[in-house]
This record gives sequence, C-alpha cells and structure tokens, in this order.
Amino acid sequence: MSYIDNIRKVVPYTPGEQPKVEGEIIKLNTNEFPYPPSAMVEKALESLDIDTLRLYPNVTAAPLARAIAKYYGFEEDEVFVGVGSDDVLANSFLTFFASDVPILFPDITYSFYDVWADLYKIPYVRVPLKDDFTVDVNDYKVKNGGIVIANPNAPTGIALPLESIEEIVKANPDVIVIVDEAYVDFGGESALPLVRKYENLLVVQTFSKSRAAAGMRIGFAVGNKTLIKYLSDVKFSINSYTMNQMALAAGVAAIEDKEYFKETVTRVINTRNWANKQLVKLGFNVLPSSTNFVFASHKDVPARDIFEYLKTKNIFVRYFNKDRIDNYLRITIGTKEQMEKLVKVLEEYLK
Amino acid sequence: MSYIDNIRKVVPYTPGEQPKVEGEIIKLNTNEFPYPPSAMVEKALESLDIDTLRLYPNVTAAPLARAIAKYYGFEEDEVFVGVGSDDVLANSFLTFFASDVPILFPDITYSFYDVWADLYKIPYVRVPLKDDFTVDVNDYKVKNGGIVIANPNAPTGIALPLESIEEIVKANPDVIVIVDEAYVDFGGESALPLVRKYENLLVVQTFSKSRAAAGMRIGFAVGNKTLIKYLSDVKFSINSYTMNQMALAAGVAAIEDKEYFKETVTRVINTRNWANKQLVKLGFNVLPSSTNFVFASHKDVPARDIFEYLKTKNIFVRYFNKDRIDNYLRITIGTKEQMEKLVKVLEEYLK
Repeated sequence: MSYIDNIRKVVPYTPGEQPKVEGEIIKLNTNEFPYPPSAMVEKALESLDIDTLRLYPNVTAAPLARAIAKYYGFEEDEVFVGVGSDDVLANSFLTFFASDVPILFPDITYSFYDVWADLYKIPYVRVPLKDDFTVDVNDYKVKNGGIVIANPNAPTGIALPLESIEEIVKANPDVIVIVDEAYVDFGGESALPLVRKYENLLVVQTFSKSRAAAGMRIGFAVGNKTLIKYLSDVKFSINSYTMNQMALAAGVAAIEDKEYFKETVTRVINTRNWANKQLVKLGFNVLPSSTNFVFASHKDVPARDIFEYLKTKNIFVRYFNKDRIDNYLRITIGTKEQMEKLVKVLEEYLK
Repeated sequence: MSYIDNIRKVVPYTPGEQPKVEGEIIKLNTNEFPYPPSAMVEKALESLDIDTLRLYPNVTAAPLARAIAKYYGFEEDEVFVGVGSDDVLANSFLTFFASDVPILFPDITYSFYDVWADLYKIPYVRVPLKDDFTVDVNDYKVKNGGIVIANPNAPTGIALPLESIEEIVKANPDVIVIVDEAYVDFGGESALPLVRKYENLLVVQTFSKSRAAAGMRIGFAVGNKTLIKYLSDVKFSINSYTMNQMALAAGVAAIEDKEYFKETVTRVINTRNWANKQLVKLGFNVLPSSTNFVFASHKDVPARDIFEYLKTKNIFVRYFNKDRIDNYLRITIGTKEQMEKLVKVLEEYLK
C-alpha cells in the first residue's frame, strides 16, 4: 500500500481557457462582462482602511449580505454570501442534497453540477432537454432528492418562464429546488419573488456576470431563513471566514450603483441582439438567448473548425466536445467593437 | 416527509466572538496580529487596475503561489493557495483522508479538525496529549488513515521539535501527515525543509497571523507536486476561482516585504515574553508559548471568572469550556500598550 491509495481522486471541472498569447486578444470564452465595475468600486477600495486587513472579516459577510438583501427587498438572514456562485452552489449541494434519492438536472446545463454531485457522492439523473433544448416541466414531477435548474440555462442561453419554475417548485414540496440565476439580469425572469411563497426554493445569483465582478468572487443565495441557517452551518463547518475585507467593501459598492448596472447591462443586451442578427446573416442558427452569450451552430461549417480558426485570430470563444452540443459555439457578448471584429473575421472565414 | 429531512445538519466550528460593544475594546481573542499589514499592501491595492475585477482571476492563483514558492525556496507547483488555511486544511482533509482507517490528531488541538472530519465522514481518534500538554510521538506509530498535527499546537502554544515531527512523518510512509503551522513564525521550527525528503508530508501555513492579514483570507500548503496536484483537483471540483484579484495583489505585496515582517514579528515575540513574565508574577501558570498567544491558568481564580471580568472591562480573551482546558485562558499577544493595560486590569482584579 502507498499513501496514494488513500487519496481522493476526482475529475475536476474544466474552466474556460485563460489564453496565454502575445498581443491583443478578444476574450469571449468565459462570459465575463465587457465593461469595468462601477467607479464606486474603485473608490471603495481606495478608501479601505488598511488596518482592517489584519482583522478577521465579519463572519457572515454581514455588510454585503445586508446590501444585497436591501437591494432585492429581503432580510439579511434570508441571504447567504459566498466566494462566487460556485462556492454558494457547492455548499448548497452539500447541504440540501443529502438524500439517497437521485437529484435531477438537465443533461445539457452548467457542467459543474455533476462534478459536485460526484465529489459529494450525491446520486443524480441527468434529464434530457427536449430537441429544441428547452426543459419539459413534467420531467421534474417524478420522485427525486432535489432539483437544480439553471435559468436562463447555460450553455444554451434559453430562459424558462417563471410559471414553469413555479410549477416545478410547487410540485416538489419535499425537496429543495435550487434555481441558478447566474445570467438572469440579461433577460430572464428571476424566481426571487417566489422565495417567500415556497419554503423549498433557493435562488442563487452571482456578481461575476452582470455586476462586472468575476474577479471579486462574490455569489449569493436567497431563501427562507431556515434554509439559510442550514447552509451557513455547513459553510461554518468548512471555513468560518470566506469573504475577505476587500471583497466586502468592493461588493457593497458594486451592488449599490444601480444606475451604472442598468446602463451597462442594457448595452450588453443591445450588443447581443445586434450580434445575433449578424450571426444569422452569416448562416448561423442562434438559440434564443436571455444571457450575455449566444449559443450558435453554423449550417455548413463544423463548430470545432470555426473555434480553431478564431483562435488563430486571437479570438477565444468556448467549444464543448460533448454529446448533442458538439456542433455549437458559446460566444460571450463583448463590447460592440469586439463583436464587430468577430463578425468581420467570421465573414472573411465563411465567405 | 418534509424537505427538512433531506438536509445535512452539522454542528459548526465556533469562531472567537466578534465583540459588539460601544467604546474602545482590547481584542485578544482571535490571535490576530496587532500591527497593520506592510505599507506595500496599501500600495498594491491602490495601484490595482480596476478593470481586472471584471475578469476571472488566475485559476491557480499563480502570481501568489509563485511569490510564496520563491520566498520559501520551492517551485510554483509545490504550492497550493487557498482562502485562509481553513480552506486549505478542509480541502486537504477531503483529499488526503479518504481511507476507512481513523486519522489521528491530539485531543487538545485546533477545534476545527473534528468538525471537518465529521462533515466529510472521516473516522478519527483524538489522541490524548500527555499531562503537560505535549505530544507523545509514539502515539502516532500505530495504524492510521492519516495524521494532522498543529505545530506549534493551539490553544496550548507548545511547539514540537522538528526531530519529533520527522519521526512521525518517517514512521507513516503510507499515509499523509499534515503539519498545520499557523503559528510557526512566532518561535516554532517549520517542517518545510522536510518537504522534499518525505513525499507524504504536507505543510500548511497562513497569512492570518504573522503576516497581519486575517482579513485577506490567504493560506497555503507546500508539498510534493503529486500531492499538490491531487489537492488542486479536489479544489477545482468545488470552485475554480477562489482567490480574488485583490487578495492576489495584496498577498504578493504582503509576502515580499520581508523586512517589515521580521521587525513586527520580533516585536510581538518580545511583547509575549514580557507579558509571560508579568502573568507569572500575577500567579498564572503559563505554558511555554511559541505562538502569538499564551495559554494560562491562575493558581486561585477560575479561568471563567477572569474571562467574564475582563469582558466587563472591554478586554476580550478566549475561554474554552472543554475537558482538561476549562481552567485556562488563551490570550492573544496584542501591542505592548494593550498588554500593559491587560496586566493592570488583572492586577486590580487579582489583588
């Protein structure tokens, strides 16, 4: 026997490539926001009292939980804050999916779900999406140990109407339904208004996309106080202090600047709608997107070829070598200028 | 059945109290450093390009891993960086203690160890320290699934000589031995020089104590590349990006200012030695400390009474209502002025 035998071996999630190339690149592969965070964030960091860095941060990230709660009309103890929504979701899987009955999520969705389920030994069933990549609500009315639905879904970009989410939550009073709304600000309908109506609903969002803060690592969950308490207990069993002083200060500033948020998100939506049209003109089938990316397949040219060609032009998009979606590209919506450049490069390649 | 039945219920670790009182307080209860971080940290945060906050951080925290590796004479891929050493240790428990044979750690030690073991369903045996609160190395030469030793130990403050650590590591080639060196810079002997000699050794340290950065949430592990790879895989199965852009920048600055580090740590050690003498004069038995705290028991007055009295004077120390140590106080070493105030208050109370 060797010490290696005792080690847990896992197949980790593969995040989007961080390109290491010389010169200017156009990075449309990890769904980052194309504009910097609010100027209020810069101010908050500049005015941070450096002496606070020697002290442990607030253990419940209270200043940030309060700011988020206030923004969305909740109480502080209905909000859980974590290191990006991945941290929030991982802890939620560990906390809420402790049954022996398989949990359910779509076959095509955020590819971290099965990684967490494997890691925490949670049984799961991947429910096939319909041929048009939409969710059949009836598939979620069977016995299960919990449900997680990304809405809008990724990498398809397709949103499920709020009535459908409510139907799923209502049909499953004995398990927790997690709605992962990473992209909701770009066109989805949030389930936040249902949180006080259904005790078994947990809504998860992130600052990484619409709040221009992937580098701050902030995500949050909203749910009834009992759920938040159980989730916090598990979190406190792993790491008492996860949100550092800088993230607390920057995060509060990021959520408070409502004006800037609205303006920049609208800009991304407009660019998406423009880019969508251009891609259709170029022969792409583009799924209806409610996110800051589009999921597109070309009628003639294989996705992988386009993906590789774009790389040679220093344009990075995301390609998934996976069943059912291996002829699609996930293209993050960048600035208008970046998308114009992309369209131009594609035009030349496809003509 | 209700959705509550499916939820994982845990008893979380209880961190030191964050006092919520009016007026000036003396906070000697969570082993924070009494001096602010290096001025280079302030500069690093001021010069942080705010646009980087919209981008996901480097996925392996490479700039910080490199700086730590360079400082201690290792390669970047021998270093794992996490959100405080709690994050590093929790991930290490999950990764390296995957055997069915119980892991071993002392009965009196960092009280997070059994919390992690319970959470991850790792069997464990708490090995009693000797009557003088030291480790009997022979206790760790029995069949086990892994070992974790805090050195110096907490809350006792007592350091184990490096030969003893080596004896334990050498006697257990088939399991991973984790040495948790949160307090090592205040007088312990680090096991880092043994890392390249023993493949089964993982050394964990933190920026929270000697680097004045509890609020930055930075911890790290050093071990052979294979161990670091397995640990990273588990980490990537939970959260791809844990270290935010601010922590990366601030952390690099904190480790690079060697001068400031040495000067301030020396100051704390001198204050500890002074405070130790004063406490002995006041009738305390003080365990030999190699940390930034002392563990002390009074010959006449119960620890709990002193603890409660100090609170009324806005002085916060740590009291553990636990077997064998319920007549001890753990007192963090503050500034010289804070310790003088403490001694004065104790003098009045004990006279």
